[in-house]
Amino acid sequence: MKLMGADEHKSRRLMSLLKKRGYIQPAFELYGGVAGLYDYGPLGGRLRRNVIRKWLNHWIKLGNIVEIDSPTITPEAVLKASGHIGAFNDYASECKSCNSIFRTDHLLEGFHNNPDSLDNTALDKELLNHDIQCPSCNKTDWAPSEPLNLMFSTTIGASKGGRRAFMRPETAQGMFLQYPSIYRHFRGKLPFGAVQIGKGYRNEISPRQGMIRLREFNMAELEYFIDPESNKNYNLQLWDEVLVNLIPDPMGGDSKELSSTINEAVEKGIIRDKTVGWFMIKTYELMSELGINTELIRFRQHEIDEMAHYATDCWDLEIFGCYGWIECVGIANRGCYDLKAHQKVTKSNELKAWRDFEKELEIEKVVCSPIQSIVGPQFKDKSKMITAHLEELNGLEIEFPLTININREQFIIEEHMVEIKKIKSIERGEWFTPHVVEPAFGIDRIIWHILEHSYQEVSKENDEKYTILSLKNNICPIDFSVYPLYEKDGMPEIAHEIIDKIREVNEININYDGSKSIGRRYARGDEIGTPYAITVDHQTLEDKTVTLRERDTQNQTRLSLEELVQFVSKY
Amino acid sequence: MKLMGADEHKSRRLMSLLKKRGYIQPAFELYGGVAGLYDYGPLGGRLRRNVIRKWLNHWIKLGNIVEIDSPTITPEAVLKASGHIGAFNDYASECKSCNSIFRTDHLLEGFHNNPDSLDNTALDKELLNHDIQCPSCNKTDWAPSEPLNLMFSTTIGASKGGRRAFMRPETAQGMFLQYPSIYRHFRGKLPFGAVQIGKGYRNEISPRQGMIRLREFNMAELEYFIDPESNKNYNLQLWDEVLVNLIPDPMGGDSKELSSTINEAVEKGIIRDKTVGWFMIKTYELMSELGINTELIRFRQHEIDEMAHYATDCWDLEIFGCYGWIECVGIANRGCYDLKAHQKVTKSNELKAWRDFEKELEIEKVVCSPIQSIVGPQFKDKSKMITAHLEELNGLEIEFPLTININREQFIIEEHMVEIKKIKSIERGEWFTPHVVEPAFGIDRIIWHILEHSYQEVSKENDEKYTILSLKNNICPIDFSVYPLYEKDGMPEIAHEIIDKIREVNEININYDGSKSIGRRYARGDEIGTPYAITVDHQTLEDKTVTLRERDTQNQTRLSLEELVQFVSKY
Repeated sequence: MKLMGADEHKSRRLMSLLKKRGYIQPAFELYGGVAGLYDYGPLGGRLRRNVIRKWLNHWIKLGNIVEIDSPTITPEAVLKASGHIGAFNDYASECKSCNSIFRTDHLLEGFHNNPDSLDNTALDKELLNHDIQCPSCNKTDWAPSEPLNLMFSTTIGASKGGRRAFMRPETAQGMFLQYPSIYRHFRGKLPFGAVQIGKGYRNEISPRQGMIRLREFNMAELEYFIDPESNKNYNLQLWDEVLVNLIPDPMGGDSKELSSTINEAVEKGIIRDKTVGWFMIKTYELMSELGINTELIRFRQHEIDEMAHYATDCWDLEIFGCYGWIECVGIANRGCYDLKAHQKVTKSNELKAWRDFEKELEIEKVVCSPIQSIVGPQFKDKSKMITAHLEELNGLEIEFPLTININREQFIIEEHMVEIKKIKSIERGEWFTPHVVEPAFGIDRIIWHILEHSYQEVSKENDEKYTILSLKNNICPIDFSVYPLYEKDGMPEIAHEIIDKIREVNEININYDGSKSIGRRYARGDEIGTPYAITVDHQTLEDKTVTLRERDTQNQTRLSLEELVQFVSKY
Repeated sequence: MKLMGADEHKSRRLMSLLKKRGYIQPAFELYGGVAGLYDYGPLGGRLRRNVIRKWLNHWIKLGNIVEIDSPTITPEAVLKASGHIGAFNDYASECKSCNSIFRTDHLLEGFHNNPDSLDNTALDKELLNHDIQCPSCNKTDWAPSEPLNLMFSTTIGASKGGRRAFMRPETAQGMFLQYPSIYRHFRGKLPFGAVQIGKGYRNEISPRQGMIRLREFNMAELEYFIDPESNKNYNLQLWDEVLVNLIPDPMGGDSKELSSTINEAVEKGIIRDKTVGWFMIKTYELMSELGINTELIRFRQHEIDEMAHYATDCWDLEIFGCYGWIECVGIANRGCYDLKAHQKVTKSNELKAWRDFEKELEIEKVVCSPIQSIVGPQFKDKSKMITAHLEELNGLEIEFPLTININREQFIIEEHMVEIKKIKSIERGEWFTPHVVEPAFGIDRIIWHILEHSYQEVSKENDEKYTILSLKNNICPIDFSVYPLYEKDGMPEIAHEIIDKIREVNEININYDGSKSIGRRYARGDEIGTPYAITVDHQTLEDKTVTLRERDTQNQTRLSLEELVQFVSKY
């Protein structure tokens, strides 16, 4: 799988370009670096912001999605309830000979199809079966694998007796804990969703693969709360022209890869949940708008064993690049797992939603109604409490004399003290725990593949490698560059006038570059992905026209300043 | 100072509104809450995003500022070099009677003007002098105060032998460590700057004051790298109409508050650095655009004792609200402290900038030049190494015979082996360490004051409190709300058509509200700060016009759909 068919040298040239030009680089390099931590540089920082902005806008404009923000520091109790403590584990094996520690599933790569799905006993057995050598000392003497908690731990409170806490492994819990506030915001009308964009943390044992496996990463998650019993009227036919590659769970029978519309896959039950299907196609659409080559996208359904502790159906969107097929988005139906888990621990009754019955129900109940003229004198100041208790009972199930305990006191209720009667009540609806469909995005992995899919090496006449980063407009860090042909004869001044004028257009990023030959500057712009170059030349001095050069076609057009401003406004 | 003149009840009503409507709330409330951690809810999340966006755009459009992003997890070595380990301390006192721990400066509030500036001996003396009681048990028996490291610590690497690390106390170090990349990006042309927006962490002992003193907070910092020797041509006269309130360092002589233009304050030397002055006025401008009441802004200069370990001049922008005057921005000249500190530890030569001399310098040097026909045969394969060593020496200071040590070998150089000669060399410039001016923003504190300054209670006829949140356009979470007068007669359908049309305008947030009376809906919109309400009524059914109601004036205008769309596009 590794580097399947990809050009390893090309990806190394890309990485070196990205570093040189300030897109991305290993963090803390001056201090020797820390594996699994990356920096976004002067260009990468803006690319990251633009990608996040596009991501956010894609969901917000649906109209029933809001953005929230919650702390990254999370108290232990929350992660115990959510199942992350005890479950969010990988296994590690220690070499008895040299004491090096490795993730067991990594040791088995190439020997087992899906080592991620094995438990510790199975992992140890596989190590033995395949005679796996220690990558450090080549011995094959492994201690039994042990679970490792991959969360960064810390303590809240600087003094003694601080509270144990962790850096969040996902942003999702913040949305679940804010559910009451989100429910109020939408006045209880399901479906609705919340997104959160921020850092997630995973204390990997041996981070590898550049931006792919990070210890601190940019996540963007969406929690979509639905009524599992209500009809889902997503119009999936809208995408009936779009064929996507699907690899269904082999356990489901359809093991082989297929090309299908989402609509058809939902109809056939390959995708088990319509909401999951809808988010799959909306995600596919977003990836395409961000500049991912859709031919290098596929969806892979999780096997039952591989599914996270909460999920009932899960599809990964995988993107192909120099690291092979990499999971970049996970779209899971988490059921009511999370809200129920927090409900159980906190006893909160705010984690539910109200569902109106289609028709109001008239319900007949048999209740136990105390006769006040008897109960009052008998129990005096306790009678109110006892009455409340009795009214909750089902009148058909009582045997007299009835002994009840309230606040550690015992009371005996005789049959003559109460009346068993039928009453009618109208029930308009009921409370239930919503289900959640979650698309979770690894922003760094997506950015890596955007860069990789945009990177082109073109052969020019002189046989030098000429590189173009064909980033989509609106996500590239610099929108326009203005070049004076020479830095004299008033050309720089005109260039700066143009820049000032264009900068008035909201949030357009435009820069000036006057150094080296015009050819070198075009090449530099192409290499960092600036879509348009504006050149001020001798003719500009005469008639105030400039040339506009397009990155991908390298076509040049001559425009008046007014035409240019108009072009930029529509950009 | 506390609640000076402010209406405590009013601020409590504001806080309860913000919670109820989903702006902000204490985090993890379902789990009993954690002091110093806050959530942004469905409305607050978007307000936060909008404020950050406006902040970012304010600086990026200067043209020589870029955004970067670096990890929040920071290895110990970096923070040792930067001076945060050992210096970023507050003092804490333990009550010997009940073992409670408090920040010593907090205990002294109301008893000392500026307890923050005292060292531990002075703090202990003040505790004694003022007979300060323990807030828990009222005793006055304090143990000597001790420094506390207020950083959250963690470990990188899940296995044994992990590396000690901290959650960053500021985002600034990320910019210093990326300096080589930023310098390359701007091709070495100072001045330039980098910004970073993200989480900062401070493990407070006893967080109080709602959003003001948080353990995890949103920071936005700008590091502006300058040549301290070059002229600073900021045009401060541009703001000669603007008087700002300044409280200069009393040590400087001008102790009393004054109202002055920034230009004048720089001219008079009250503001010691022109770049600091320029960032003060640009920051003031931004605060005003964000909706802070500029009458409630003042700048306070740090006293020498109070200044952070790195700063040479520092002004706080303070905003007045229900907590009194609160520092929301710090604008510091950090000198070359940070770059030098990292240079010293890492031995990197990449943390400098090149400065051209105004005129090239012709420099005459006396050098020691080995005579190859003698040195060659004598030292054989070592002669090259010895030559390089000798050429570095100042020819005037050598005494013969000269003993030199290279790689633990000793060589004797006699006078006849070398020629002492004068040479001329041209020096075009020199390397130096840039200085840094840093405006650092506490985004949460700014957001709190935006909300507080926007909050208005208006008395209406019926004497009920009517509240309006007069947020500025472009930062409010919802831009437009569409209300059908009744949810029948086709009005909801038209409302949704309007929403679909307006949603095409990029990044406009528009919502639908059909529940309760139209008056209630106007009130709800005013309360959450939606600037415009669009109402679909009976007349809409006839002539397709709607009413547009403005929040602050409550004026209504009738517009055709075309006029409405045009209005929204210009919004």
